[in-house]
Amino acid sequence: MRYGRIATPDGMCFAVIDGAEDNNEKLVAKEIEGTPFTEPNYTGREWALEDVKLLAPMLPSKVVAIGRNYADHVAEVFQKSADSLPPTLFLKPPTSVVGPEAAIKIPEFATKVEFEGELAVVIGKPCKNVKAEDWKSVVLGYTIVNDVSSRDLQFADGQWARAKGIDTFCPLGPWIETDLDAVDVDDLPIKARLTHEGVTETKQDSNSQQMIMKMGEIIEFITASMTLLPGDVICTGSPAGTEAMVPGDYIEVEIPGIGKLGNPIERA
Amino acid sequence: MRYGRIATPDGMCFAVIDGAEDNNEKLVAKEIEGTPFTEPNYTGREWALEDVKLLAPMLPSKVVAIGRNYADHVAEVFQKSADSLPPTLFLKPPTSVVGPEAAIKIPEFATKVEFEGELAVVIGKPCKNVKAEDWKSVVLGYTIVNDVSSRDLQFADGQWARAKGIDTFCPLGPWIETDLDAVDVDDLPIKARLTHEGVTETKQDSNSQQMIMKMGEIIEFITASMTLLPGDVICTGSPAGTEAMVPGDYIEVEIPGIGKLGNPIERA
Repeated sequence: MRYGRIATPDGMCFAVIDGAEDNNEKLVAKEIEGTPFTEPNYTGREWALEDVKLLAPMLPSKVVAIGRNYADHVAEVFQKSADSLPPTLFLKPPTSVVGPEAAIKIPEFATKVEFEGELAVVIGKPCKNVKAEDWKSVVLGYTIVNDVSSRDLQFADGQWARAKGIDTFCPLGPWIETDLDAVDVDDLPIKARLTHEGVTETKQDSNSQQMIMKMGEIIEFITASMTLLPGDVICTGSPAGTEAMVPGDYIEVEIPGIGKLGNPIERA
Repeated sequence: MRYGRIATPDGMCFAVIDGAEDNNEKLVAKEIEGTPFTEPNYTGREWALEDVKLLAPMLPSKVVAIGRNYADHVAEVFQKSADSLPPTLFLKPPTSVVGPEAAIKIPEFATKVEFEGELAVVIGKPCKNVKAEDWKSVVLGYTIVNDVSSRDLQFADGQWARAKGIDTFCPLGPWIETDLDAVDVDDLPIKARLTHEGVTETKQDSNSQQMIMKMGEIIEFITASMTLLPGDVICTGSPAGTEAMVPGDYIEVEIPGIGKLGNPIERA
């Protein structure tokens, strides 16, 4: 089941997004009561998805991210081997989260802002000390994140919180796929296409097979330290191919079986 | 005015904490409706403070911290000059926040856990792009934070999110002093006393005069990137004197004019 958060003419709500995307069947947003953490209670109101606006599918209390989780990306960014620079944990602030089609706004002082297309999961229940093999029991579903990163600030600051934490630097969506067996998280294509001056090129074209720390390990690692709460988002790391974006560009991350997350780039 | 968040036999609430601490007058917690972001509306219920439990005075949506903001602390931790390692920004997760007298719980894998006594401010209104000279217009009040840090993980990870983000690693309190002129933030003594095996020693004994980035600069720097929301907490950096704590110890941070924040150390 796919849960989105939508803006309708009457306000904001969570909705089940129905219909098969791949055969171009028209998608429908069916409003539910409350949140996606329980079985859906439909209100009976529904809209064609094109008539409403998809928002970030969740407003997380925290966004926990794994950095350096693909060897080829470690090599391109840090010019080092993944053996010498193992995966590490960082946080993005909730205020950086935006939804599909919302503009990524680049401030003047961020001079090298790159996309990072990533698989993300949304947590479904409060949890601590989760064993790797139990990860599915605490996950609500999958979504896509663009871990937008200003490389100049990332290296100048040493700590990544500012470079990756600027308002709008965490596009999330388009929705949450709660069928955990809908895709194989260990064999999931991850693509990012950048449109620059009208020309669209595939820049990231990888697979979650390349993840150094796998989903279960990631959740065990994080929850050994931190309690995760319903709605918290985990970003699982970016593969190689990241590149700078400039105002006027458009970036789209695609994970087949989950969806596409596209955002235009603007000057803040 | 001092706002605390308290647990009473009837539940949790915000309260005005009345009475002068320095002349040993008995402190009284007077319940207010709602939150401290508006003028207090007293419910009429009150308790002697000793009969209720002070909780963390705020549950922030984010905790933004400035690292390396005291030259002597940069020297002791990084063996470098503050010129070569300027202040940097990092985040602590909301799940790390605990209140006065709550135990700081050290997991087995954190082998060098140190206190860092710091001045903190709580944000009073949504804000972005705040000019340094306008900082008081967005601050609800002052409080104290202990930026507990596992030095081993801090250096192993490179990123500080895990080392400083473990559950219970952000003691906050005892309350929020909203009279912004009650103290001079540019000349504020900051002390930390560690009790180990029954012996109490002053370990940190500094002054906010030593802050490299001053309060206005900090808030301008952060809000150039991130929107701050009501309740968000900013930690302004630790002076020198940090030291490892072990289960059985007790750590107390004191900032005269604001209060004392004490926490026991336990094994997680």
